[in-house]
Amino acid sequence: MSDTLADEIVHLRAATPGCARVIHFNHAGASLPSQATLDAITTQLLREATLGPMEAGVEGARLQEEARQWAARLLGTDSAAIAFTSSGSAAWGMAFNALGSWQPGDRILVGRHEWGGNLACMTQAVQSGARLEVIPCDENGAVSVPALERMIDSRVRLIALTWLPANGGLINPAQAIGAVARRHGIAYFIDAGQALGQMPCDVQALGCDVLKGAARKFLRGPRGTALLYVRPGFMAQLRPAQLDVLSAPWDGHAFTPRADARRFETSEVSLALLAGLANALKEAAELGIERIHRRIQRLSQTLRQALGQINGLELRDLGLPGQQSGLIAFTLEGWDAFALKQRLAESGINLGANGTAYTPLDMQARDLPAIARIAVSYLNTEEEIDTLLNALRALANEGHQTSTSTSSP
Amino acid sequence: MSDTLADEIVHLRAATPGCARVIHFNHAGASLPSQATLDAITTQLLREATLGPMEAGVEGARLQEEARQWAARLLGTDSAAIAFTSSGSAAWGMAFNALGSWQPGDRILVGRHEWGGNLACMTQAVQSGARLEVIPCDENGAVSVPALERMIDSRVRLIALTWLPANGGLINPAQAIGAVARRHGIAYFIDAGQALGQMPCDVQALGCDVLKGAARKFLRGPRGTALLYVRPGFMAQLRPAQLDVLSAPWDGHAFTPRADARRFETSEVSLALLAGLANALKEAAELGIERIHRRIQRLSQTLRQALGQINGLELRDLGLPGQQSGLIAFTLEGWDAFALKQRLAESGINLGANGTAYTPLDMQARDLPAIARIAVSYLNTEEEIDTLLNALRALANEGHQTSTSTSSP
Repeated sequence: MSDTLADEIVHLRAATPGCARVIHFNHAGASLPSQATLDAITTQLLREATLGPMEAGVEGARLQEEARQWAARLLGTDSAAIAFTSSGSAAWGMAFNALGSWQPGDRILVGRHEWGGNLACMTQAVQSGARLEVIPCDENGAVSVPALERMIDSRVRLIALTWLPANGGLINPAQAIGAVARRHGIAYFIDAGQALGQMPCDVQALGCDVLKGAARKFLRGPRGTALLYVRPGFMAQLRPAQLDVLSAPWDGHAFTPRADARRFETSEVSLALLAGLANALKEAAELGIERIHRRIQRLSQTLRQALGQINGLELRDLGLPGQQSGLIAFTLEGWDAFALKQRLAESGINLGANGTAYTPLDMQARDLPAIARIAVSYLNTEEEIDTLLNALRALANEGHQTSTSTSSP
Repeated sequence: MSDTLADEIVHLRAATPGCARVIHFNHAGASLPSQATLDAITTQLLREATLGPMEAGVEGARLQEEARQWAARLLGTDSAAIAFTSSGSAAWGMAFNALGSWQPGDRILVGRHEWGGNLACMTQAVQSGARLEVIPCDENGAVSVPALERMIDSRVRLIALTWLPANGGLINPAQAIGAVARRHGIAYFIDAGQALGQMPCDVQALGCDVLKGAARKFLRGPRGTALLYVRPGFMAQLRPAQLDVLSAPWDGHAFTPRADARRFETSEVSLALLAGLANALKEAAELGIERIHRRIQRLSQTLRQALGQINGLELRDLGLPGQQSGLIAFTLEGWDAFALKQRLAESGINLGANGTAYTPLDMQARDLPAIARIAVSYLNTEEEIDTLLNALRALANEGHQTSTSTSSP
C-alpha cells in the first residue's frame, strides 16, 4: 500500500456506491458509506427479520463488541472506555450531565469554536450560576494555550474544546490544552466530531477525560451512531442521570452503574447500525488513519490554494496556514452560502453551508452570518477537485455580474 | 376486512419474511417486521449512500414527519406532542430527568410492576431524598386505585405506571389511575412499551402527562426506535437536561427549548430507521388497532386455557382472568425458564424468558426468580399455537421425568 492511497483510490471509490452518483465534498456533514458498510447493516436487519429481532441479538452483540474493539483501537484505549450512542450531542450531553450539580461561581472554559449543541447542554448549568467563559484566541484564531493557563483557578471545573470546528479548517491545540488540564486536574472534554476518521485521535496523547464524535462524518459510519470515550480513571466521577437495565444492572437490592463506559449506553440500540459501524471502523483501521490524514491534507491544501485565486472568493478558515484540516470554509461575493450550496447540488456537487447556530460564539465574534464549506475526504480525487473549482469559478463570475448589476442604478 | 383479521392473515404472514422461518411468540421482546418495513429502511439507507447522507435528509425528514403523524394518530394526539428516541428507557429517563431536582420528602408512587429501567432512572432522585413508594395491589395483583387514592398528599410529585408489565398478562387500570392523577394535579407517566401496537392507547382517555414505548415490540417497528408522548399542557414543566441545536434552537442570544416534544430529540437520528417506523405505524393504522387487539385477545385466551391444562405448567399472570394481555407468563416443573427458552429455540419456536431485573419489585414480591413468556401477536396462527402447545407438553413430560429422577435416591 502506498503512502498516499492513490493506488487504491479507484478500488475504494468503486466500493462506494455514492462515488458514481455525486461529487461529494460534504464529508463533514456526513460521508459516503461503502457498500460493505451498507451490507453489514442490511445483513443484520435481515437476520433480525428472519430469526426474530431479539434472537438475532446474539450475533448483533458480537458485532457491537467488534465495533467497540475497533473504536478502542482507533482511539488508543481499551474497549471498556468506549460507549456507543445514537448521536454525538447526546454523548456529550450525557457525560456533561453526569458531572453533577453546578454551583454559582463554578467556571466552564470553552474554546470560541465550541459546537452549538454542547453550548446548549450547558444552559441549565449556567442557569444554576456556573460561568461560561470563552478562552481567548491566538493570532491565528485558535484557542490560546497561554491565555488558558492564565484563566485557571480552583473554580474551573471543566475545559471543553471543539477540536476541529464545524465552520472551517482550524485544528485547535487539543494536546497542549490537555497538558494544562492534566497539570491542574481539571476535567477536559473534547468534541472530536470532525477529527474522527480524518486524523489520528489518541486519547492518551490528548490527555482528555471525555471525547465524543458522530460516526457518520469522516469515519463513514451509519447515521445515528456515535462514539463516546470516557477515561477509565475518570469514570467514577461521572454519575449518569439516565440509567436503565443495561447501564445500571440490578443486583437484587439496587441499580448500580456499570464500571465501564457502557454506563452511558441504553439496553435498546440498533445493532444493525452498529454492525455497519463495525465495518466502517474496520475499513478505517485497514487503510490506516495516518495515510487517510496525509491524503486529506494533500488534497485540501491543493484545493485551498486554488480557491484562494478565485475572484471574489474569500477563505474563512482559522488556524495556521499549512496546518489546517480537510474542512474549508469560504464565502463568495454575490452568493448566499445556502443558495450556493443549492446551486452546486443541482450540478451534482455536494458541499455544506453553516449558519451561526452550529458555532455561534465564533461566527458572532467574526461577524459571519454563514459560510459555505467544502469537506475533503480521502475518497475525493483531483478530477473532482477540478470540477468543483470550475463550478466555483463560473459561480464567481455569475456572482460578480449579479453584484455589479445590483449595485448599478 | 373482517373483524378478526382471519381473512387477511395469510397475506400478512406472506408479507413478513420471519413467518416462514420461525414460530415467533416473542413479540413482547420484539416482533417480526414486514418486508415493506425492511424495504423502507433499506431504501432510505441506499438514498443516503447514493445522494449523500445529509442530502438524503430532505426525503428522510419527510418520512420522519410522516411517522410522527401516524404516531400521533395512534395515540390520539397532535404530532407536536410526539418525539422519537432511540430507546424507550431513554425516552422515559429524559422526561423524568426534566422534572427538575428532587427534595427530601418528595414522593414517587409506582406500581409494583414498574419496568426496571424506569426504577434505575429514579436512583439519583432517591439518593436526593425522594421516597419511592409502591402502590399496593388489589386481589388480582393489579395496582389498586383505592389504595392509590389513600396515598395521595401534597408531597406526591409523580405517579409512574407500567401499564402492561413485561412479566405477564396483567393490564393495569391505567385510565382509572389517570383520573386520580388528574383530579389531584399530579404528574403521571405511563410506560406503554407492551401496549403500543397491541391495544388502543388513547392518551386523552388515559389522562397521562408522559407516555413512552419502544417500537420494536407489538408495533413491529425497527430496533432502536421509540415513541415519547408529552402532553402539550405539561411541556413547559419539563426542562430537558440534554439539549442540542435541534431541541433548543439558537436565537442569536440563547438556546431555548422548543415548544413541542422535539425538545427531547437529538438533531442526529437514523432517518432510515424512522422511515421503517413510519411504515410500521402505517400498517398498524391500516389494520386497525381495535381489530389487532381483538385477535390478540382471542388467540391468547385460547392459548392460556390450553396451557392451564398442561401438567406441571403454572400460569404466572396477574390480572383478572379474561381481561389479560397477549403476554403469558408461566413456569414449568423441572425447567429453568432460560433453558426452556433455549430448548424451544432449537425447535424453531421463539419465546421470552425474564429474570428479576426487568420487573424487580413484582418478581421479588412474588418470590419468582424467572418466568418463561409467550407473547402473542395478530400474526400468530392457531396452527402455531398447536405446535407450541405440543412442544410444551413434550417438555412437561420430560421435565416431570427429570424432576422424578433427580428426586429419586
